[in-house]
Amino acid sequence: MKKISRRDVLATAAGAVVLGKAARAQEPQTINPAKRPGRAPRAVGERSSFEKAQRQVRGPTSSGTPHQDLMGTITPSELHFERHHGGVPDVDPKSYSLLIHGMVERPTIFSLADLKRFPSVSRICFLECSGNLNRTAGPETTPQQLAGLTSQSEWTGVPLATLFREVGAKPQAKWFLAEGQDAAMLTRSVPIDKAFDDALLAYGQNGEPIRPEQGYPVRLLLPGWEGNSNVKWLRRIELSDRPFMTREETSKYTDPLANGTARMFSFIMDARSLITYPTFPVSVTKGWIEIQGIAWSGNGKITRVDVSTDEGKTWSAAKLQQPVLSKAHTRFRHLFNWTGAETVITSRAVDESGYVQPARAEVIKFRGLGTTGYHLNPITGWRIKPDGSVVYREEAWA
Amino acid sequence: MKKISRRDVLATAAGAVVLGKAARAQEPQTINPAKRPGRAPRAVGERSSFEKAQRQVRGPTSSGTPHQDLMGTITPSELHFERHHGGVPDVDPKSYSLLIHGMVERPTIFSLADLKRFPSVSRICFLECSGNLNRTAGPETTPQQLAGLTSQSEWTGVPLATLFREVGAKPQAKWFLAEGQDAAMLTRSVPIDKAFDDALLAYGQNGEPIRPEQGYPVRLLLPGWEGNSNVKWLRRIELSDRPFMTREETSKYTDPLANGTARMFSFIMDARSLITYPTFPVSVTKGWIEIQGIAWSGNGKITRVDVSTDEGKTWSAAKLQQPVLSKAHTRFRHLFNWTGAETVITSRAVDESGYVQPARAEVIKFRGLGTTGYHLNPITGWRIKPDGSVVYREEAWA
Repeated sequence: MKKISRRDVLATAAGAVVLGKAARAQEPQTINPAKRPGRAPRAVGERSSFEKAQRQVRGPTSSGTPHQDLMGTITPSELHFERHHGGVPDVDPKSYSLLIHGMVERPTIFSLADLKRFPSVSRICFLECSGNLNRTAGPETTPQQLAGLTSQSEWTGVPLATLFREVGAKPQAKWFLAEGQDAAMLTRSVPIDKAFDDALLAYGQNGEPIRPEQGYPVRLLLPGWEGNSNVKWLRRIELSDRPFMTREETSKYTDPLANGTARMFSFIMDARSLITYPTFPVSVTKGWIEIQGIAWSGNGKITRVDVSTDEGKTWSAAKLQQPVLSKAHTRFRHLFNWTGAETVITSRAVDESGYVQPARAEVIKFRGLGTTGYHLNPITGWRIKPDGSVVYREEAWA
Repeated sequence: MKKISRRDVLATAAGAVVLGKAARAQEPQTINPAKRPGRAPRAVGERSSFEKAQRQVRGPTSSGTPHQDLMGTITPSELHFERHHGGVPDVDPKSYSLLIHGMVERPTIFSLADLKRFPSVSRICFLECSGNLNRTAGPETTPQQLAGLTSQSEWTGVPLATLFREVGAKPQAKWFLAEGQDAAMLTRSVPIDKAFDDALLAYGQNGEPIRPEQGYPVRLLLPGWEGNSNVKWLRRIELSDRPFMTREETSKYTDPLANGTARMFSFIMDARSLITYPTFPVSVTKGWIEIQGIAWSGNGKITRVDVSTDEGKTWSAAKLQQPVLSKAHTRFRHLFNWTGAETVITSRAVDESGYVQPARAEVIKFRGLGTTGYHLNPITGWRIKPDGSVVYREEAWA
């Protein structure tokens, strides 16, 4: 930001500007775009060649969203995290079909056109993998590397309740199985109440057909529930009076607890927050910094995000970007006047159920040190060093 | 949709399904994706190869959004309409600068990093070109061809009010000039009240940096106001006590009226609605059809969308997708039981100011037949023929 004197700027009546010495130093070093015609319109747009934000590919089964590069609340579809158990299948929408059977009056096969003929709804909500915490993160960890497995889209589809009424779900049906048509044939059991609450068969994402890695052409969407249960490339739903005890419900996605028991079917993603700026690898300078991040809860709306700039000693309520939507990433912002002293910045989400995002010690007390990496939502923080560099505040888990 | 008998479906305890004869006829003709591993994660995602929705390129200066292919309210950034007067420049963000001068205490040059250091806000709103009506549309016209020059994004940026306070806007400043750095060096005059209301300098679009054709790296965003005044590739703002009377405010974007006078500075885009389904080129069959579309108003929130399925004789209130946001595309849906008789479906938007989208005759009465093609928002309709084909209901303008 350069304050300039009046003599630096000589504006003519025609609107042209002659810049003086001080201003000239700021002039673009590249070719002046005002001096040559730009390119023509394109049928499908692309990002600026200067922009390089990418998902972080983590081996053959997942990739994470670059939260440190994003703004607002919508995740661009091309940067929505991926998690799959058998790769991304290439499903032909013309031959797509969904079978709904089991405890129903009228077992039925639906084509994609059939599904699209039913009344539709749209909603903006987050989707988070329950394994969304890197417990071995060192100082040089970005928000993407720490917790890139949550993203947000505007989803469009048909309420599952509509289809369950269409096929005549029987009163004794209490659960349903959702089965994908990927090479893992991923299956999960879901309580039928969720279908009659807010479950969708989603075929739209951010205005367009959902992306291949998000389950094209149709996925199950269970707002606020762990990503794995939002079965993609959905091909079959079977209604039953009990859960199906699938592989994903036994070997994984079940949480050992400190008291020696295990918690199954812990679907709801509890409230969490993640500071996205300033974080590794940025550096800051003294003065006002707008701390930013996202907070979300599978229980409903975020009601408050507290930010601490003194390693958790004191907390202040951050500003929440309106409108705050239920089960949605909510952007929070908090102004912090950094004096140059080393400190840690942290954030803590509170949702409309009254749930408060726990400290790491509380999580360990409940879950035990030997727990799996699923459903962990501790408060996390970032250390600002005297030289302005920012690193992840690492904390031991074992 | 195929109802199947219980004998068609033999579910085993392991969750595998053996489909009977009726069901087998529905099986995919392509390779079964469940039988082979899918592809690995990608750093940047792509649309399914089966999806072909594109912007309609209309000569060298614009392209339109394919509303007939879209769902929900967010326009994917790669399908956001384009309109430029000198092509799309390629601006290097590292050398980007914005000069604010004129009637200010402290003329200042801001780098992109300077702008990003100020407190930011995000909002979802539409952006519409004021020339968004094809008056010579024939029956074989899609919503994209009729009115593709409106799109919606979640924009992020710094309130212009913040910068005007930073540079010390003088009390006598009543207007400001916004100048782009494209080859047209597009300039527009904007009343300063808009800056202190809700104008943004936007650098984010749908979570990522704004797209090149949307003004990368920084554009002016005037929610609800005609697209042309939302100057892109913004390089200069000059404050003054009067409008600058630029080319775009004289040769174009001024509306001749029926009474022989002309209306200047008609910034606000009045309420409008557009049915997006069913429209040309789809065909429908008898029975329930979910009529869908978008409605928007530069005056604030849409409060009602009336739909007529009998060529305007009777009207019913459509369902509005919640939450309804101010100055935003709002999706409306209305169930219609089509009997097979020829009819015309139309929609009419009402906004919170009480404004009602006018019929074509009213528009012509006010504007005159010789008016320009700017700021026209008549009720439009689609004819469903007895064979189920849907065409645009063309209406003569002269």
